[in-house]
Amino acid sequence: MAKKLVYSFGGAKTDGRGSMKELLGGKGANLAEMARLDLPVPPGFTITTEVCSEYYAYDRKYPDGLNTQVATALKSMERAYGAKFGNSDNPLLVSCRSGARVSMPGMMDTVLNIGLNDDTIKGLIAKTGNPRFAYDSYRRFVNMYGDVVMGVKAETDKDEDPFDSIMSRMKANRGYSSDAELTEDDLKALVQRYKELIQERLHVPFPEQPMDQLWGAIGAVFDSWMIPRAVAYRELNGIPGDWGTAVNVQAMVFGNMGANSATGVAFTRDPSTGENYFYGEYLTNAQGEDVVAGIRTPVPINAQSGALPPGADKTLEDEMPEIYKELVGIRKELETHYTDMQDIEFTIQEGKLWMLQCRNGKRTGSAAIRIAVDLVHEGLISESEAVMRLKPDLLTQVLLPSFDINDPAYRSRKVIGKGLAASPGAAVGTVCFSAKAAEDLAKKPGPDGRPGQTILVRVETSPEDIKGMFAAQGILTARGGMTSHAAVVARGMGRPCVAGSSDITVDYEAAAFTTKSGETIRAGDWISIDGARGEIIRGPLPTRPVELADEFAEFMGFVNKCKKIGVRTNSDTPHDSEIARDYGAEGIGLCRTEHMFFETDRIDHVRRMILADDLAGRREALARILPMQRGDFLGIFKAMDGLPVTIRTLDPPLHEFLPHEEHDMRELAERLDIPLPKVRNRIAALREQNPMLGLRGCRLGILFPEITEMQARAIFEAAAQAESEGVEVLPEIMIPLVGHEKEFAYQKEIVDRVAKEVGADTGRELNYLVGTMIELPRAALAADRIVQAGAQFFSFGTNDLTQTTFGLSRDDSGSFLNRYSELGIWEQDPFVSMDQEGVGQLVEIGVYKGRSADDRLKIGICGEHGGDPASVRFCCSHGFNYVSCSPPRVPVALLAAAQFAIDEE
Amino acid sequence: MAKKLVYSFGGAKTDGRGSMKELLGGKGANLAEMARLDLPVPPGFTITTEVCSEYYAYDRKYPDGLNTQVATALKSMERAYGAKFGNSDNPLLVSCRSGARVSMPGMMDTVLNIGLNDDTIKGLIAKTGNPRFAYDSYRRFVNMYGDVVMGVKAETDKDEDPFDSIMSRMKANRGYSSDAELTEDDLKALVQRYKELIQERLHVPFPEQPMDQLWGAIGAVFDSWMIPRAVAYRELNGIPGDWGTAVNVQAMVFGNMGANSATGVAFTRDPSTGENYFYGEYLTNAQGEDVVAGIRTPVPINAQSGALPPGADKTLEDEMPEIYKELVGIRKELETHYTDMQDIEFTIQEGKLWMLQCRNGKRTGSAAIRIAVDLVHEGLISESEAVMRLKPDLLTQVLLPSFDINDPAYRSRKVIGKGLAASPGAAVGTVCFSAKAAEDLAKKPGPDGRPGQTILVRVETSPEDIKGMFAAQGILTARGGMTSHAAVVARGMGRPCVAGSSDITVDYEAAAFTTKSGETIRAGDWISIDGARGEIIRGPLPTRPVELADEFAEFMGFVNKCKKIGVRTNSDTPHDSEIARDYGAEGIGLCRTEHMFFETDRIDHVRRMILADDLAGRREALARILPMQRGDFLGIFKAMDGLPVTIRTLDPPLHEFLPHEEHDMRELAERLDIPLPKVRNRIAALREQNPMLGLRGCRLGILFPEITEMQARAIFEAAAQAESEGVEVLPEIMIPLVGHEKEFAYQKEIVDRVAKEVGADTGRELNYLVGTMIELPRAALAADRIVQAGAQFFSFGTNDLTQTTFGLSRDDSGSFLNRYSELGIWEQDPFVSMDQEGVGQLVEIGVYKGRSADDRLKIGICGEHGGDPASVRFCCSHGFNYVSCSPPRVPVALLAAAQFAIDEE
Repeated sequence: MAKKLVYSFGGAKTDGRGSMKELLGGKGANLAEMARLDLPVPPGFTITTEVCSEYYAYDRKYPDGLNTQVATALKSMERAYGAKFGNSDNPLLVSCRSGARVSMPGMMDTVLNIGLNDDTIKGLIAKTGNPRFAYDSYRRFVNMYGDVVMGVKAETDKDEDPFDSIMSRMKANRGYSSDAELTEDDLKALVQRYKELIQERLHVPFPEQPMDQLWGAIGAVFDSWMIPRAVAYRELNGIPGDWGTAVNVQAMVFGNMGANSATGVAFTRDPSTGENYFYGEYLTNAQGEDVVAGIRTPVPINAQSGALPPGADKTLEDEMPEIYKELVGIRKELETHYTDMQDIEFTIQEGKLWMLQCRNGKRTGSAAIRIAVDLVHEGLISESEAVMRLKPDLLTQVLLPSFDINDPAYRSRKVIGKGLAASPGAAVGTVCFSAKAAEDLAKKPGPDGRPGQTILVRVETSPEDIKGMFAAQGILTARGGMTSHAAVVARGMGRPCVAGSSDITVDYEAAAFTTKSGETIRAGDWISIDGARGEIIRGPLPTRPVELADEFAEFMGFVNKCKKIGVRTNSDTPHDSEIARDYGAEGIGLCRTEHMFFETDRIDHVRRMILADDLAGRREALARILPMQRGDFLGIFKAMDGLPVTIRTLDPPLHEFLPHEEHDMRELAERLDIPLPKVRNRIAALREQNPMLGLRGCRLGILFPEITEMQARAIFEAAAQAESEGVEVLPEIMIPLVGHEKEFAYQKEIVDRVAKEVGADTGRELNYLVGTMIELPRAALAADRIVQAGAQFFSFGTNDLTQTTFGLSRDDSGSFLNRYSELGIWEQDPFVSMDQEGVGQLVEIGVYKGRSADDRLKIGICGEHGGDPASVRFCCSHGFNYVSCSPPRVPVALLAAAQFAIDEE
Repeated sequence: MAKKLVYSFGGAKTDGRGSMKELLGGKGANLAEMARLDLPVPPGFTITTEVCSEYYAYDRKYPDGLNTQVATALKSMERAYGAKFGNSDNPLLVSCRSGARVSMPGMMDTVLNIGLNDDTIKGLIAKTGNPRFAYDSYRRFVNMYGDVVMGVKAETDKDEDPFDSIMSRMKANRGYSSDAELTEDDLKALVQRYKELIQERLHVPFPEQPMDQLWGAIGAVFDSWMIPRAVAYRELNGIPGDWGTAVNVQAMVFGNMGANSATGVAFTRDPSTGENYFYGEYLTNAQGEDVVAGIRTPVPINAQSGALPPGADKTLEDEMPEIYKELVGIRKELETHYTDMQDIEFTIQEGKLWMLQCRNGKRTGSAAIRIAVDLVHEGLISESEAVMRLKPDLLTQVLLPSFDINDPAYRSRKVIGKGLAASPGAAVGTVCFSAKAAEDLAKKPGPDGRPGQTILVRVETSPEDIKGMFAAQGILTARGGMTSHAAVVARGMGRPCVAGSSDITVDYEAAAFTTKSGETIRAGDWISIDGARGEIIRGPLPTRPVELADEFAEFMGFVNKCKKIGVRTNSDTPHDSEIARDYGAEGIGLCRTEHMFFETDRIDHVRRMILADDLAGRREALARILPMQRGDFLGIFKAMDGLPVTIRTLDPPLHEFLPHEEHDMRELAERLDIPLPKVRNRIAALREQNPMLGLRGCRLGILFPEITEMQARAIFEAAAQAESEGVEVLPEIMIPLVGHEKEFAYQKEIVDRVAKEVGADTGRELNYLVGTMIELPRAALAADRIVQAGAQFFSFGTNDLTQTTFGLSRDDSGSFLNRYSELGIWEQDPFVSMDQEGVGQLVEIGVYKGRSADDRLKIGICGEHGGDPASVRFCCSHGFNYVSCSPPRVPVALLAAAQFAIDEE
């Protein structure tokens, strides 16, 4: 038997089903599935994706037997629809559409109204009694076919489309202002002129034979799989070229055949809130494109779907109650069948309902949660199925303000530049260019009485800017990648951030930035930034505040029942720790002590320590810092009562704590009463070619053991005090940037000694662990030795591990990252999702070696990847004990972990 | 039977032998071996290192039976020497010395003249008839014993030694100016006062019993194994603490008993030139210390050993012809026995020759070569034994000028600072502070008519300084590590270099540098630098020029017969290529194209290319560079006729080619006729946080494919032209900084395309390979995929691989490297010798994965480690096809490879 190349649907027999997406494409499979449910689907057939693959494999030739199978399927369509393709009395018209395994909206070609010619038009007029409609369809068909199939297009980008140009000329000659004024005769003349255009351009006539038209359209759809925009889209979205597209040929139905015709789209629940009512829009006497294109304002299908627009007086429910009832029944049937909210398209042709599309509906994060929870309550899905329903990334949407995308102001927003979507959420404020200004603005109320909202705009940010970043609504930088300082800190704080925008040039002196298109935005001007899309928008846009519905808590309850791995948070303050705990964090996986060093009450002591000539000077300054650090830790211990708190000893290069501008140095020298040349020299001496690879991490603690000592003392004294107040404290002290086991051993020695001293002073036996970051390739390679040297836990610092494994500075990758992504060199930005192929190998080696030395070694991750779903799955599958991420990512990590656990069952 | 703890030698029976160094220590084993050869060794015994280990394992208690075994051995000594320990008529005096498995000169304690007391002194006087000598010995003994065994020392660093202070007071009271004026009675009184000092300080009497003295001395020697300076020395030299020391107790012989007594040291061949004659010095009526301490000028043992010093009138040969003849016989016997040049110590006591020491003699590199070659000719050793005789590093000495260490000016040199011994050799010149000045000075002849000799002093060097570095005799930098730009380039050029000297502060404005001790050296002042020791010396020192003796070629002939792996060179010019070829290089393993970019005739074109706005501008500038690069390659291909030449495409960040000072930018803007703000902005845009991890390597070629294209064209056009001139060309094109196989694939595509184009243009079929550096951890981890993407060879770039694996910038490691080395965190600087434990694992993974994809994949190394012997051995043992290193290291690498091959046989 010959291979089956064509699958019929909607007639006497439906060959395919919903699960056959690979073979029939998404559209074809969904149509088949609806037909199997006996829904009113216009009959048709699908030519499989395998035909597409063969077509390209054999130099654009079709496989044997396709002709026959198409002819047979067409016959069965004719029988089902009761019309004949090419018949002048009762003509069947068909559409021809692409349909790949995954949706590639608008990328490939479509041809409608196939089967019309000077002969069959008569039958269409007779059937419809509407010659103008028939000629308009004919005119559209010749235009579309001439363009898509025959390739008659504008010759240069500047020329007008030749078909449009013919029509505009006619309208001008006749003095018409709209297409609606074209008469039947005008349309008839247009058909003629379009055909002449084709003859002139191509020296071949327009094909009058319907079968020729059909094969032309099928070929055009297959060919469109390889047009540049489709190829580019596939590359961008990681869709393999050999998947191919299917071709769907389907009987045309018309929603524009008069008052008893209509077309509409609907969701089986509200896609924006998730509420359980039928939500949709329709237009009478219109085609599907009219709804989508927004030429006429669509009308709600029922009262719940919104208010009637001006000029409309009835919802579909009121206008066509029978049809509406039928639709409501279909809604119920589809939801029960698919156990999920559906997005449907329908057309009503002269009082008959036809279903054209059905697929799982896109929804907002909060809608997704509500729908999943409701479906559990309705008994349609189980709790673990509900957990599987949400893409983890959707959860961040729920936790951050977003723009109101239904607001007209949003629709007409003016995007003046783009950058990296570095931290999601919507932010609106006046522009300022320094951290100080942001702080000041946040303090003083604006004319509306509310505190000033500001967007901090910097070339790049540094640790000195932290308070300003916190004070700002959002952050915009001109330089830096997805894990630049701005991006990392913003995500940690839950502040929206657009980073590394090469579209803007910042001029601090002028207190302004200019865009590529030449616009200038000055300090005080309002802008909005969309951290989820990387957009910079002129002016303020309305936002929707965060409201965590009860469903969120219920949903996270399902999640927590399923997930197995621990989820901690990266947090440096009691406030962040509390937020993360509310989100479900089960401890702190990374507390960066250096962020505390920037607090105004201590930064000068820190600087005095760095500038000191000798040990005595450093000790004196450290003694001042000690009580403050102790206070920080005490607050965090209290906030995390009963949960582990991982504290990293000082990590960044010292020069980050010092000013670099001459006038700041001068000011500092005066304030600290240190000679200016000394300040200048010390800062110069600390300057490094590659600070990422310089004097930082445990190297600091080895060169200046007194720093580690002070930090250990602050931790243990705080722990002792917290315990004396009844708080349960579980400190885990983490040594950064270890590459060799002896580095770890030297630092652990200090920590253990101080623990003993504080234990003796306070009379308490202090429980704590000492472990290390694994953030250098060498640490992963020497993991067994590091455990043998006493490490009690590992935390993979995959930011630095990615930087060193790739030899790639996150701050400097912006210059070529775009090109790399265009070329598809990396499937994903390795700073966003862990490079499992490369970095993952080192993690695997580290885990294997670490556990080979101690099979119960506690292993976690605290890099940015700890909140990335794919990376969380990697950690789950590699036996990690926990992942740690910034507070807003905690629910995301929990969800990813739960989904992994369910998949593994 | 009880365990043997004591081994006798030199008497009726010798228990040990030369191969028992682990048990008897080096000294004990050598004494035993000489005794076995029936040489006149004063009898004695060795207490084993195992006793030392037990002593420390059991809380400083000796193992059972030691007492008895020492007593027995002492008896046997008495018999052999014909004297009795503690006997007042015929006393035996003994020495007690440490002796570890490897020599630890001066680190541990020694006690001489043990056995003297108020009773036995009489016998000594009677035996020698020399009461003054006897009391002098006694006085020395009490002093030494009191100090070393009993611990009577100066109480603070500032106090004088208490024994010295007693003697100085006596001399002052008596009005003596030298020790020689002390009379017998004086010395007798000193013995008394010394004993009183001990009684006063310790409240115990000086031990009069010889056996007490002996056990006291043995205990002191064992104890000295753990004194801080010995522990520190072991840590520094990687000697395990549990090896322990042996203790050698030996009959005292005296070279200071009159005119028929003497003491001397000799080498069986000249240790400086290797010439085959007996070379030595002696002093009549003197003790060993006198020769070493240099109080009296020693006299040559024969005419060949040098001229008689003032006051001396006879060599040993003339003075004591019989003894000399006996020594000559011993010399012959020892060389035949050990088949190597020996370093011996001897004492003549009243006309009898005693041999005290014998070991393989230290020698210079050229002496080592000459001796090895001569020994082959003399039939004493085989060629492969000769190859094993040289430490590979010694060879660099031979190829570079060195200071004449015998010159008095050298001995009294003034070291004004130290830095890293970054590139060996001696350099002398006037100081200059810019590359330009160095070039100018090198051009103009000095007052002596010779071209100016200059030392280029910089804070650090950059690629712009290359010509100045070449023009200078040597390079001195204040910042940077062993693989800083200065160090790497200097080694490549064979220029001596002292790098990263934190002892100096360079002030360019003042054109001077100051040292820590406050000296100021100005431009034009003479200094000398010793690149092998890291010394900076005030004033010019005499150097010895390089003269490659015929023995060098013969020796390298042996080496080449043995070695199996290929040895290539890193070279960027025809001149260097020729030198390396002369040294035995079998191809170029790394030709850095960027060095050529700095040539004055093209740097401005390079800059124009970087500053260009668009592709057209870049192409225009590249078209200018093309013919020059083609010329470079042509020269190199000709120099390497018949050998492979590996050419790396552009690697460094572009900002390295641009000026950074405002006035240089201004000058450039004017010269190139480009607006200054544009130059400034472009330079600012190229600035990176961590250029090591930024836009460089293949990232450049991916962002600007036209650069790779131009370079490939230059290579292939040069290859075609060279072939047309009859030269055999084997180009291997190497893509740097690949981390992902797609990066490699994109670059290879360009190279292959250009090869086809040039092939078509020239009508030649071009043979070439395209491969990649493996210099990022990710490349090693993805090595199989990179081969599958078409890589035909790998070259491990272990400089960058070390930087990324450790997360350690070679330019910035100076600030903590010293502390790390003090703490012994790294056994060796990982930039000098490959970190086999960490980086080596990645190399192993890379080799394994690469070969798993193509089992005949060609694999080499071109980092600095390619010339480090230990790293060369690593490469040999991991199946590398070749190593590549700078020209002066080629013989070193060859030798290391030969030794590996011999070891493997």
